[in-house]
Amino acid sequence: MQTIKVGLLGLGTVGAGVVQILQQQAELMAQRLGARLVLAKVATRHPERERDVKLRDVPVVGDVREVIQDPEIPIIMELIGGYEPARTYLLDALTQGKHVVTANKAVLAQHGQELFEAANERGLDIGFEASVGGGIPIIRTIKEAFVANQFLAISSIINGTTNYILSRMSDQGLGFDEALKEAQALGFAEADPSFDIDGIDAAQKLALLASLAFGTWVEQKRVYTEGITQLTPLDIAYAQEFGYSVKLLALAKLTQGQLDVRVHPALVRSTSELASVQGSYNAVSITGDMVGRNLLIGRGAGALPTASAVVGDLVDVARNVIKQSSGRVPLQGYQIPHVSALPLRDINDITCKYYLRFQVVDRPGVLAAIAGILGQEGISLESVIQKGRGVAQGDTVSVVLMTHEAQERHVRQALQAIQNLSDVQGEARRIRVEDE
Amino acid sequence: MQTIKVGLLGLGTVGAGVVQILQQQAELMAQRLGARLVLAKVATRHPERERDVKLRDVPVVGDVREVIQDPEIPIIMELIGGYEPARTYLLDALTQGKHVVTANKAVLAQHGQELFEAANERGLDIGFEASVGGGIPIIRTIKEAFVANQFLAISSIINGTTNYILSRMSDQGLGFDEALKEAQALGFAEADPSFDIDGIDAAQKLALLASLAFGTWVEQKRVYTEGITQLTPLDIAYAQEFGYSVKLLALAKLTQGQLDVRVHPALVRSTSELASVQGSYNAVSITGDMVGRNLLIGRGAGALPTASAVVGDLVDVARNVIKQSSGRVPLQGYQIPHVSALPLRDINDITCKYYLRFQVVDRPGVLAAIAGILGQEGISLESVIQKGRGVAQGDTVSVVLMTHEAQERHVRQALQAIQNLSDVQGEARRIRVEDE
Repeated sequence: MQTIKVGLLGLGTVGAGVVQILQQQAELMAQRLGARLVLAKVATRHPERERDVKLRDVPVVGDVREVIQDPEIPIIMELIGGYEPARTYLLDALTQGKHVVTANKAVLAQHGQELFEAANERGLDIGFEASVGGGIPIIRTIKEAFVANQFLAISSIINGTTNYILSRMSDQGLGFDEALKEAQALGFAEADPSFDIDGIDAAQKLALLASLAFGTWVEQKRVYTEGITQLTPLDIAYAQEFGYSVKLLALAKLTQGQLDVRVHPALVRSTSELASVQGSYNAVSITGDMVGRNLLIGRGAGALPTASAVVGDLVDVARNVIKQSSGRVPLQGYQIPHVSALPLRDINDITCKYYLRFQVVDRPGVLAAIAGILGQEGISLESVIQKGRGVAQGDTVSVVLMTHEAQERHVRQALQAIQNLSDVQGEARRIRVEDE
Repeated sequence: MQTIKVGLLGLGTVGAGVVQILQQQAELMAQRLGARLVLAKVATRHPERERDVKLRDVPVVGDVREVIQDPEIPIIMELIGGYEPARTYLLDALTQGKHVVTANKAVLAQHGQELFEAANERGLDIGFEASVGGGIPIIRTIKEAFVANQFLAISSIINGTTNYILSRMSDQGLGFDEALKEAQALGFAEADPSFDIDGIDAAQKLALLASLAFGTWVEQKRVYTEGITQLTPLDIAYAQEFGYSVKLLALAKLTQGQLDVRVHPALVRSTSELASVQGSYNAVSITGDMVGRNLLIGRGAGALPTASAVVGDLVDVARNVIKQSSGRVPLQGYQIPHVSALPLRDINDITCKYYLRFQVVDRPGVLAAIAGILGQEGISLESVIQKGRGVAQGDTVSVVLMTHEAQERHVRQALQAIQNLSDVQGEARRIRVEDE
């Protein structure tokens, strides 16, 4: 049976998972692929370090060039993560004529165009299924299964850390800080969690998904991004009263020829499938004009689910090596000349329903004043909850409103005017509602 | 740009959907594929008939051989359905050296082995994503994305007709006959609905999924199959009281080296994602040892979702034509010599929880007698509901029980003994419970 040697850069959580799969499933994969995938060399910064993963007789080296430049290895896996040196290693590997497989959404969101061009020039493959949604096969689904579709919308939960925190805040009424500490203790959040909780991780993944689905290059920094740090258990509880759950959504919609891409907390109906996605699970809902709406749910992180996607790509690239069919599916799903610039929609132009909460002094006429300002901006109300009564003179109460569809620009103007009312205290809370 | 001609057999609902997609998305697909797919010839039994779908200048013929034998057409779509003449046409096409794409689960469940062998001998591709789950990319996911996994379980809702009927019985309390009539009036059920409501359609699809996932050939007639005709609104209502919904599940599990494959109504937790799959939607939950559990939800039928899958396969096969890489992914996911016989698990050997309902004469001691028989068979109870009190002497009441895990064989023996009790009237109702 034919043997295909593969090289591995990085021996962290996912790297160790890949080693485990290549060992444990060797026979099964040979039966499916018709060839043996052999891990020929591993590069890691500390080759001498003791590890749980047993590499048997696979050489472990400290210098990545020993892997990248090995003439017997046609496929390199990059599982280091981050922008650099990952970008340099990937470019070096491509320059050496190697196919690459990566789980690195950061380097693809930032340098994808450069990497894809380098691969295209040489007719090489880049597998990156593991970069979004862990084990969920969303990249293949967009590029291959749904190739007959003009995509209309993506609505996704693609950051496990924030989904875990929000699940805990919803189920247990924990505050944000408390839920974050718990997530950190359990290894679901990093010591420096800002990348996740500020929505950057989700924005990188969304930029990548939207680039594939819509045949354009979306820069991550142009994705409108709000994190979850401003969410309170109070707003989550009110949302539940209205029949909604709060999720960090990553959304991309094609609206009037503009691409609306954004990451922010959103209310989704408690009875919807997205609301049922709990803890570290991820979900991607994708709508095509022909296939309609599809939803894919699975583990969005973790060593083995992510390694399953890496090895899935490895087999895919190996099939092309065997059949000499590399470049069979274009890297971005579109032939290069057809990847085009698509204007992005300004956040002020979007329309949706809004959840609004104001802390107001409990005095007659306050609600009327708020509703009046909203009305002047053309914003009508679907429902109102006014909570509690002040015990003492001057106590504040919550006024919680759900609007009908309104334009972001008008909502922002109205909120500014409302916050200038003397009876309104503190900052207004505004969460967008994504009804489907 | 390269042109690839394709032929179409059958111009029914899905065939018309394919024609629409090939026309409407021609530009988009050319940008993605880098070649033009041109519908070159269509065969249908009544070529002269007026149709909604506009074929422009595509020749429509009455003799399939004109399509199959056309030397300029390398790919044939079979969208006729049923066993024959579909099988013969597919074999003829393969014999002529044509790749084929089909949406026909019946012919694959019955003659898949023969067809796959014919294709393999000649290095030809067969695309059949559309045969299970409409637009849901489950075939690709099993054969390609999750190639690094030993599969452990499939739990699926893959018949839209029965799911629609059960949704209506649950939501509106309709009786089975009433819900069926409504489904027929709306076109969700056939005039002769037995194929769907008796579970045959689901069993065919399950046989196919299990064959791919477990690298074996499962014959449809060996899938344990119960339909939904015995379900009553009463049992659905009691199930809801226990916190469950009733779905027609198609299940495949690897248990102690045996394959447990079955289609039957089952109670699933009301809070589970499968319970939220309503109406004509399909869902496939698939568990791999590495990737964990994944769930795919989408439209399981309908012209355009199914045609989207057909055209997705068409592009896949066309990529192989362009790159001369046909046979790149083995038809069954495994290289032929590794497709093996796997023993099937006897239904009597399965274990699960059971929902049981008895109509009993409202007399002291009846529940004790029932519980006693269950206890003798080693079946313990999780909960009991006894409903109503007879107004007149000799009236019957419902005794509804939820058991702990028990073996089917013991449950059957207990039910037989219980039905022999003089105070138990009519047939006992038994529905399996699938907790995850």
